[in-house]
Amino acid sequence: MKKQQLFDLFSLVREKRPLVHHITNYVTVNDCANITICAGGAPVMADAAEEVEEMAAIASALVLNIGTLNRVQVESMELAGSMANDRKIPVILDPVGVGATQYRTKTARRLLDELDITILKGNAGEIGVLAGAEGNVRGVDSHGLAGNPVAIAQDYAKTAGLTVAISGATDIVTDGKHTLLVENGHPMMGSLSGTGCMAASVTGVFAAESKDMVFASAAAFAAFGIAGERAASGARGPFSFRTALFDELAALTPDDLARAARIRTG
Amino acid sequence: MKKQQLFDLFSLVREKRPLVHHITNYVTVNDCANITICAGGAPVMADAAEEVEEMAAIASALVLNIGTLNRVQVESMELAGSMANDRKIPVILDPVGVGATQYRTKTARRLLDELDITILKGNAGEIGVLAGAEGNVRGVDSHGLAGNPVAIAQDYAKTAGLTVAISGATDIVTDGKHTLLVENGHPMMGSLSGTGCMAASVTGVFAAESKDMVFASAAAFAAFGIAGERAASGARGPFSFRTALFDELAALTPDDLARAARIRTG
Amino acid sequence: MKKQQLFDLFSLVREKRPLVHHITNYVTVNDCANITICAGGAPVMADAAEEVEEMAAIASALVLNIGTLNRVQVESMELAGSMANDRKIPVILDPVGVGATQYRTKTARRLLDELDITILKGNAGEIGVLAGAEGNVRGVDSHGLAGNPVAIAQDYAKTAGLTVAISGATDIVTDGKHTLLVENGHPMMGSLSGTGCMAASVTGVFAAESKDMVFASAAAFAAFGIAGERAASGARGPFSFRTALFDELAALTPDDLARAARIRTG
Repeated sequence: MKKQQLFDLFSLVREKRPLVHHITNYVTVNDCANITICAGGAPVMADAAEEVEEMAAIASALVLNIGTLNRVQVESMELAGSMANDRKIPVILDPVGVGATQYRTKTARRLLDELDITILKGNAGEIGVLAGAEGNVRGVDSHGLAGNPVAIAQDYAKTAGLTVAISGATDIVTDGKHTLLVENGHPMMGSLSGTGCMAASVTGVFAAESKDMVFASAAAFAAFGIAGERAASGARGPFSFRTALFDELAALTPDDLARAARIRTG
Repeated sequence: MKKQQLFDLFSLVREKRPLVHHITNYVTVNDCANITICAGGAPVMADAAEEVEEMAAIASALVLNIGTLNRVQVESMELAGSMANDRKIPVILDPVGVGATQYRTKTARRLLDELDITILKGNAGEIGVLAGAEGNVRGVDSHGLAGNPVAIAQDYAKTAGLTVAISGATDIVTDGKHTLLVENGHPMMGSLSGTGCMAASVTGVFAAESKDMVFASAAAFAAFGIAGERAASGARGPFSFRTALFDELAALTPDDLARAARIRTG
Repeated sequence: MKKQQLFDLFSLVREKRPLVHHITNYVTVNDCANITICAGGAPVMADAAEEVEEMAAIASALVLNIGTLNRVQVESMELAGSMANDRKIPVILDPVGVGATQYRTKTARRLLDELDITILKGNAGEIGVLAGAEGNVRGVDSHGLAGNPVAIAQDYAKTAGLTVAISGATDIVTDGKHTLLVENGHPMMGSLSGTGCMAASVTGVFAAESKDMVFASAAAFAAFGIAGERAASGARGPFSFRTALFDELAALTPDDLARAARIRTG
């Protein structure tokens, strides 16, 4: 049913090439920049307090990722986030490793309190921590959450007033009222550092050109997941898979997305 | 006419393996390190104020890139730049995203004022901003400049007393008196994050072993561009292109460069 | 003779998937994260003073790499290192570029003084500098050391009370009493930025699951070296080699390691 909408949104993304401002970690930042391009956006990475407001002022979406958090970055996230909120562009928060240290948990909560986060993108463990559902995070890896993830995501989305997007074997996207489940993806995505961060970047690209954050997040997950499925066939290991992942997303057409997306109402 | 010179310079580069000190952004830094090796140089990335003077003191060229600028880096750029100037080794400035924020513009101008920049390497938009020619920069992407880019580059090079190297479909290199145009390259280079930064690194490698900055810059652009042309044939997308780009530059011989370079006087 | 031990250690690594906390440079950090996964571990990169103790408290090994040293990182290395020492998990120090600047030399010595470093992993030049054997380091490249490297490594290991692991054509691993020489590897590993850093990450993964640091280091060097040998066949240059290096390490089985390792007593 959503085939036409998928086609239209991805066509718009490719046409507009939205600028996505990232304040992100130094581990996967190059992957995030390149995947943004492959998804159809234009990346800009800037985290100096002196300039983040100006960057956010020209961007179409803002991605905040706490993967290698530090004091300076937190200040910049608040400045850029406020500007993004003022301009009503979507702000995607990827709370990498939240729960692993108090610093990450406190900072993620602070950003959620002080800013209007539009989409909270994480794995089940991270969302579980923030939702108070006993998320299990070891380092930056999720080991699931206790209970029914769909119900937890819906409750938390409603309470926090945002869209929750949980990446996993089945991705869950919900704003509390509307829920979409995305079945695209491939287990090899888990054998690579940074696929979670990249998913947040792709979400930023799609959210930049949509008014429906649940749909945009699901479309982004589907696009990235389809690229993963296609990349896996023929990959001989995690790095040839990586090369193919970027190539496949860059080659994905709006028509491909509309046809291969496996999104259902949850 | 310059075939022998190209052969000689690239042979010297491969023989000497010049050490190129980078103070650069954390997005494309790994690409810059590896492309430096592929071009025939040895990279060292160091940006702590405590050590940049010592690094610049043993290097054969210094590359300054403001892609993810911050206060600490600016101080280090000044320290390393002064040492490089004292030692009369070439200093390449890549003013990434200048014009997108006041901080980038101010910092680039400050570096141009305080240091003897040898080669200013940018895209048309960035050079346009610095030359006062209404460069159009969105994030870190150039959208061209108003007017005749060759004339603007020549005027600015003369006024500022440096070599201007503009990457584009046709690369422009000039010191105001001598101008070279380089036709090598491939549009796929624009589908990858970091090719601009990499071009600056390759320029550093070539400049380290030359006394003619216009010629060295043109030779570097030609070498990198030829690698891009060869990489594009057979690439299935931006990341298989990337793999091939590094492989092709590493495989390029002085003879290949002399034969395949398309450099003409402008 | 050590075939069974190699099989057992690598099987344990793959089963346990040890968390390896890195405080490392921003040049090769992505490679270190991904090679850790390929070796069988789980990486976490975190360097904020606010959280490094908590990260080290849940990790099974700590890797400290001074490739892009700065004040903030040194403080974090001391905090994380103390926690790792208290918990008696192995601490691997990679003194990248030591000797090139006083700052690197002083910092490496300070870390060696203040922390119980378990394994000191470097190239011949770096170890030579720390052992007072006239190591020759240019930028971050080693140009060998004066004298007999095995004897120098043994003496230094004994004096400093740690395991010395020198990567090279023949890798040398010794605690002063027991010495192992590893013949695996391929010259193409030298054409890529970051293979030294990656070797330290793989060492962290193996050390996390062993009580014999000499054996664990030799096993790690052998595993990484075998991946390099396999990757080299078929590679067309440094970047296709890189892709294959990660793929081959990920595909390496405990049986492969036991069969292809070339480790001998020194």
